[in-house]
Amino acid sequence: MATIDLNADLGETTAGNPVADDASMIKLVSSANIACGFHAGDPHDIARTVESAAERGVTVGAHVGYRDAAGFGRRFMEYAPNELADEVLYQIGALEALARKHGTTIRYVKPHGALYNAIVHHEEQAQAVIDGIRAFGGDLAVMLLPGGVAVHHAEKAGMMVIAEAFADRNYNPDGTLVSRRDPAAVITDPDLVAGRVLQLAEQGTITAVDGTELKVDAMSVCVHGDSPGSVAMTQSIVDRLRDRGIEIRSSL
Amino acid sequence: MATIDLNADLGETTAGNPVADDASMIKLVSSANIACGFHAGDPHDIARTVESAAERGVTVGAHVGYRDAAGFGRRFMEYAPNELADEVLYQIGALEALARKHGTTIRYVKPHGALYNAIVHHEEQAQAVIDGIRAFGGDLAVMLLPGGVAVHHAEKAGMMVIAEAFADRNYNPDGTLVSRRDPAAVITDPDLVAGRVLQLAEQGTITAVDGTELKVDAMSVCVHGDSPGSVAMTQSIVDRLRDRGIEIRSSL
Amino acid sequence: MATIDLNADLGETTAGNPVADDASMIKLVSSANIACGFHAGDPHDIARTVESAAERGVTVGAHVGYRDAAGFGRRFMEYAPNELADEVLYQIGALEALARKHGTTIRYVKPHGALYNAIVHHEEQAQAVIDGIRAFGGDLAVMLLPGGVAVHHAEKAGMMVIAEAFADRNYNPDGTLVSRRDPAAVITDPDLVAGRVLQLAEQGTITAVDGTELKVDAMSVCVHGDSPGSVAMTQSIVDRLRDRGIEIRSSL
Amino acid sequence: MATIDLNADLGETTAGNPVADDASMIKLVSSANIACGFHAGDPHDIARTVESAAERGVTVGAHVGYRDAAGFGRRFMEYAPNELADEVLYQIGALEALARKHGTTIRYVKPHGALYNAIVHHEEQAQAVIDGIRAFGGDLAVMLLPGGVAVHHAEKAGMMVIAEAFADRNYNPDGTLVSRRDPAAVITDPDLVAGRVLQLAEQGTITAVDGTELKVDAMSVCVHGDSPGSVAMTQSIVDRLRDRGIEIRSSL
Repeated sequence: MATIDLNADLGETTAGNPVADDASMIKLVSSANIACGFHAGDPHDIARTVESAAERGVTVGAHVGYRDAAGFGRRFMEYAPNELADEVLYQIGALEALARKHGTTIRYVKPHGALYNAIVHHEEQAQAVIDGIRAFGGDLAVMLLPGGVAVHHAEKAGMMVIAEAFADRNYNPDGTLVSRRDPAAVITDPDLVAGRVLQLAEQGTITAVDGTELKVDAMSVCVHGDSPGSVAMTQSIVDRLRDRGIEIRSSL
Repeated sequence: MATIDLNADLGETTAGNPVADDASMIKLVSSANIACGFHAGDPHDIARTVESAAERGVTVGAHVGYRDAAGFGRRFMEYAPNELADEVLYQIGALEALARKHGTTIRYVKPHGALYNAIVHHEEQAQAVIDGIRAFGGDLAVMLLPGGVAVHHAEKAGMMVIAEAFADRNYNPDGTLVSRRDPAAVITDPDLVAGRVLQLAEQGTITAVDGTELKVDAMSVCVHGDSPGSVAMTQSIVDRLRDRGIEIRSSL
Repeated sequence: MATIDLNADLGETTAGNPVADDASMIKLVSSANIACGFHAGDPHDIARTVESAAERGVTVGAHVGYRDAAGFGRRFMEYAPNELADEVLYQIGALEALARKHGTTIRYVKPHGALYNAIVHHEEQAQAVIDGIRAFGGDLAVMLLPGGVAVHHAEKAGMMVIAEAFADRNYNPDGTLVSRRDPAAVITDPDLVAGRVLQLAEQGTITAVDGTELKVDAMSVCVHGDSPGSVAMTQSIVDRLRDRGIEIRSSL
Repeated sequence: MATIDLNADLGETTAGNPVADDASMIKLVSSANIACGFHAGDPHDIARTVESAAERGVTVGAHVGYRDAAGFGRRFMEYAPNELADEVLYQIGALEALARKHGTTIRYVKPHGALYNAIVHHEEQAQAVIDGIRAFGGDLAVMLLPGGVAVHHAEKAGMMVIAEAFADRNYNPDGTLVSRRDPAAVITDPDLVAGRVLQLAEQGTITAVDGTELKVDAMSVCVHGDSPGSVAMTQSIVDRLRDRGIEIRSSL
């Protein structure tokens, strides 16, 4: 039976002010990228999301970010490599303590926002992120955009890499994402998005903006829960997948 | 042979700006209360202090505080109990990851500043701190001012309590500290302070301001490293203890 | 013609993540309590709300809070009085610079959250808030819950006090708010709430939970915009007021 | 009579933990670059430094930085230009309120740390900083490293630029600073540093590492107060200047 992993960014509530509808999303996804308090989330709100992930058997990932709550981790920041490695390690340790309290454990790490994008090409930061994860020990996987230097460093370190695809983003023929500055960057039609996830799960391909069929080895598809519309879109993706008998589950 | 534990607040450097002279102090104390990033400390500076503690065999404690870097954790803050418990747990987990990287582990927790003082009498916060520590698991001890409600809750939970004494503070005849508003609160003469630590180590007593000999079951004495004078005072305490053959070591 | 002021807490967006629907609310209210970056809001998001307030002629107030973004300013914090006064002053100055850029100016100050509640009874903090406002100079008014010590200190200092009422909260017969722990604390029926605002505007009274008619000298009614339902409720209040020919405007 | 301006970074104390010896430095310098709470400083500690600057007639500058207290503003951060402009404006407004309370006013702006360095070459951020300053209004000058794009944008905007020289840094023959990675970057001999300031004041030149005499139109010389040695070095500079009858004062 075909399977696919759906992941979403959750736990970003700070002081009770939600960013996404965690309660709805946790019922739909198989992997939760849970904020660690640096780009968003406070310990108690994070813990509540971890708890509901644990209750539903959703795989927990540490969504580590730059220490920039004021910018939601969306601004590139320079770091000395060992500073960044220690910030990654600190965040994983903090989340793991909350996870263990609720009877679960972190299985993977997904860098957030500007950090996620930076380590596609930034050698030092990519290495620092991998170093920080490895310093934690265990066998954590890392969820990354395919093709970047972080993937290279992770594989060199013997780590499992979860290649991620974006259901609601258009792709260039070379496999990169269409820039957000381009009006064609984001796909908003729920049916279209659901169809793309289906194609990915069944055929392992994404159709690029020019019609090229891209072979994509994505092991996880990112969905969003930060607006009423996005929850509905995720529901529609889930319904389409289930209709076709595709199981939604983490590969970990 | 008589032994005594000397503890100091370390790891409070943020962005390279030191609060105490960690490098000097780590050579003098047997226990390091290491900041966890909430009242002070950034992950990399914290990690460096953990590393030097590990190198010298200094026992590591988690110095958990209110989330108030702007106030250095010295201002009382209201918390919902489960929020505070999760903030304590988060801090312990974060520090533990840094500790494990450097081959050591947290052995005890010492609340910092306003939190330390609050839980002497604040029932809910005292219970929340104990709950946060217990949620981490293992057999962490907790370092507290003797006689408060936190001690009660910790003992009820079966935790080891490290009773703490302050070498450079005057005591009232009832065993409480002379208020900092009183000019007699702090003792600044290094010889006098060293003598008091000696008396504590050898006779288990502290002389109160009115001359009363207080029986004190302190298992650790707090020393300071946040000024050149305070490092010298600690050195003088250490010298006096060694001269008398008293070993400086943690009871853990 | 009868008039009434409607105020709402706005500008609390941080890093683009909204707390309230500022764009909708700014069209409905006559006074905007705009966050100053301590409990919420980043300078650019704040500036955008200030700009739209200026465009629509909405009166701008500085919504000053404790320095506790992680707790959204909802947790009481201890402060040395001059520290709190300087934090209030800092926030007013920061917001004023953004206001002047957009051709408007701060006309009043409304303390936020736990600070708002604390200064009903906390003598030192009440005085510190008034001191901070006065240090700014000019003729700023202050929006407060009627009857507390802050009102007393403000009046003693010769400041104009804007007495505030809460349309969606039940009142005790003595004029205090029914505690949020009581299920009867909040009124959720839009018609009922709108009717209460109308009664307040036309008769200057609020009906307490036991049916007592309270004479209330409220000069401003607080409305909320932090959920789709609350925007609709405000719209319904505005419609009812306009139907009766009551003008919605600030008294400043 | 020859004059020279000495400026220092002050007001960086947070929660009572000092970075520099503000009390000593304020007696030696003619211009104080006072932190605005983003890279360092809390409102009350900032206010105290402003107060002592006001008492001694020291010219006050706003030392605006990236919003990165955890990194002390030393890490480059990406910003949308209007976000950065509003953050600069916010900081100036906040400091101005504290300054007015103490009977003084901001006369210039000096960007701090990574922001200072970035705007030597970063077109968008340079423009954003100038936009933020201009939005404040008045006739604020801006203190900058000579030769960068920020200088260009400031002059184009009609602003007065205070060109800054570094007494304890070696210069390349082309007028740029020797990189801190080069052991020759910093000059630590107090006599040598004092001599260079004297030469600058009297002859308007700095001797580069290769002996080249550089014509430097510096209007202000940066001195430091963040260690006991650096205060002594500043005292020695001041003594040498006074011995030669050179007046230490701001050109504003």
